[in-house]
Amino acid sequence: MKFERLALIGCGLMGGSFALALKRAALVNQVVGFSPSASTTARALALGVIDAIASSPEQAVQGADLVLLALPVAATEPTLQRIRGSVAPGALLMDVGSTKSDVAAAAARALGDKLPLFVPAHPICGAELSGVDNASADLYAGRQVVLTPLAQTDDAGLQTALQVWTALGCHVHCMTPEAHDAAYAAVSHLPHLIAFALMNSLSGQSQGAAFLSLAGPGFRDSTRIAASEPSMWRDILLANREQVLAQSRQFQASLQALEQLITSGDGEALKQLIESASQTRSAWRISTHTPS
Amino acid sequence: MKFERLALIGCGLMGGSFALALKRAALVNQVVGFSPSASTTARALALGVIDAIASSPEQAVQGADLVLLALPVAATEPTLQRIRGSVAPGALLMDVGSTKSDVAAAAARALGDKLPLFVPAHPICGAELSGVDNASADLYAGRQVVLTPLAQTDDAGLQTALQVWTALGCHVHCMTPEAHDAAYAAVSHLPHLIAFALMNSLSGQSQGAAFLSLAGPGFRDSTRIAASEPSMWRDILLANREQVLAQSRQFQASLQALEQLITSGDGEALKQLIESASQTRSAWRISTHTPS
Repeated sequence: MKFERLALIGCGLMGGSFALALKRAALVNQVVGFSPSASTTARALALGVIDAIASSPEQAVQGADLVLLALPVAATEPTLQRIRGSVAPGALLMDVGSTKSDVAAAAARALGDKLPLFVPAHPICGAELSGVDNASADLYAGRQVVLTPLAQTDDAGLQTALQVWTALGCHVHCMTPEAHDAAYAAVSHLPHLIAFALMNSLSGQSQGAAFLSLAGPGFRDSTRIAASEPSMWRDILLANREQVLAQSRQFQASLQALEQLITSGDGEALKQLIESASQTRSAWRISTHTPS
Repeated sequence: MKFERLALIGCGLMGGSFALALKRAALVNQVVGFSPSASTTARALALGVIDAIASSPEQAVQGADLVLLALPVAATEPTLQRIRGSVAPGALLMDVGSTKSDVAAAAARALGDKLPLFVPAHPICGAELSGVDNASADLYAGRQVVLTPLAQTDDAGLQTALQVWTALGCHVHCMTPEAHDAAYAAVSHLPHLIAFALMNSLSGQSQGAAFLSLAGPGFRDSTRIAASEPSMWRDILLANREQVLAQSRQFQASLQALEQLITSGDGEALKQLIESASQTRSAWRISTHTPS
C-alpha cells in the first residue's frame, strides 16, 4: 500500500500529524495541502508537512488517491459538497472529527455518488494543543482510532482505511456512528463538560483565585482537558447534545448519591461507593489492542 | 536544625516518605516508628525507613524532639490522647491530614497543656499509591505544604515546622484550619468526589465496560484520582462535609448553566463559557513559591 497523493484539507495539528506520520512510514509520494488560512498552508509547507499548496479544496483533491478532511466538524458538509465533483472515483476519503453521527448525516447529504468512498474516522489523541506547529509524526502512534463506516461505504475502502491507521501504529475499532457517539459522550464529551464546569465554578467564586493557587497535582490532571480548544468543543457538545445530556444526567445522579451519603453521614455506604469507583478506575487501562 | 529523634506514628506512604526525606537531608539522628500493623513496622525497618520499632505511640514519643502523626484522620484524637502524657515539653508535634478543622478540634480536646506544641500540616502530594513500599525521599520535594497553626500554637514551634518543610524542598503556606478546608474542598475534595461519581456513572450503565474500553488519554488523566484510597477519602469527605457539599452545589450550577446552553443550542454563549474555563485552566500553574 502506497499512495500517490494525499490531499490534506485542513493543515492543523491533526491533519499535519497525519501527513508527517504517512511520510515517515513512506506511504505517500506527495502531500498537497489546503487550508482556509494562507498563513497556515505557508507554515505547513515550510515545516515539510505538505509539499504543495492548493488554492481550493477542489484543486487539492484532483489526482489524489487519499483525501483527509481535518477541519472543524462544522465545515465538513460544505467542504464535502465542494470536493464531490473532483474526488477521483477510486480515492479513499476520511475525516478525523470527534463526533460521527453528524458527519455521517452530512456526508449522506453532500457526497451523492461519491458516498461509498467515505470512511469516517476518529483518532483518540488527547492533545489539548492545536496548530501545525505542534504537528508530530508521533501523535497517532499507539493510539486508538475508531472507524464508523456507513451502510454505503465500499468494503475495499474500509479495508484500506484499516491498513493505513494500523500502519501508523494505531489500534483500530469499527462501529456504527451512533455507537461511537454514545461511547464518546460517556468517556470524552462528559469529562470535558465536567472539566469546563469545574473551572467555571472555581473562577466564579470570590476566593477562586486564592483557592486555585493552592491546587496540586490531582487538580492539575483532573482539569487538564479544560484547556481544550473552545470552538471545537462547542461544536462537539452541540453535535452530540442528546447523548451528552443523557450522560450528564446519569453523572449527576451518581454525584447526588454520594452527596446523600455525605449528608446523612453513612460512612459504610459511602466507603462502598468510593471503593467501587476506585476499583473500576484501578482495573482500567487504555486499550492497546483491537477487540475481536 | 537537627533532630535527635523522630517519632513516626503511622509508617505508610506519607510518614515513611517524611522519614526518608529527613534522613537524606541529615536532619535527624534516629527514627522510631509505631504502626497499628506489626507487619508495616517490620517492613519499614527492613526498608531503612525507621531505625527502631516502638510497641505503642506512648513509647514512640519518649525522648523524641519531633513527632509526626501520619495516620488516618479518624485516628488523630485517640492517638493524641494516648501520647499527651509522654510527649517531651519542647518537642514539635505535627500531622499530615488532608482536613484541618477536625484535626484542630481534636487536638484542642485531646492535647491539654501540650496543645502549644502542635502544628497541623497538610502536604499536597497527589499520590494515589499508598503503603510504606511506595515511600520515597522525593515525595515532598517541590510540593506545597499548608500549615494551619492554632491560636495556642507556640511561635517557636511554628518557625521550626516552617524550617523543616522548607528544608525538604517544600513551598510552605500558613492559613487557618477553616480557610484550608474551604480551599481544599474546592480544589481537591470536590475533584475527587466528581471523579468517583464519574466512574460510578459509567460502571452503572449496561454498556459501561464497552465504553470504558474506548477511553483515551483525556479520560485517563481526568479520572486518575478516582483510584485513591477509599477509607481515607470517606473520612475526608465526611470530615469536611459542609464545605464539600457547598462546592458540589456550586459545581452543579456551573454544569447546569452549560447544559442549558447545549439544550437551547446557543453556540455563542456556550463558546464563551468554554473559553472562560479554557483560559482559566491555561493560565493556571502549580504554585512553586510561598505567597507573601
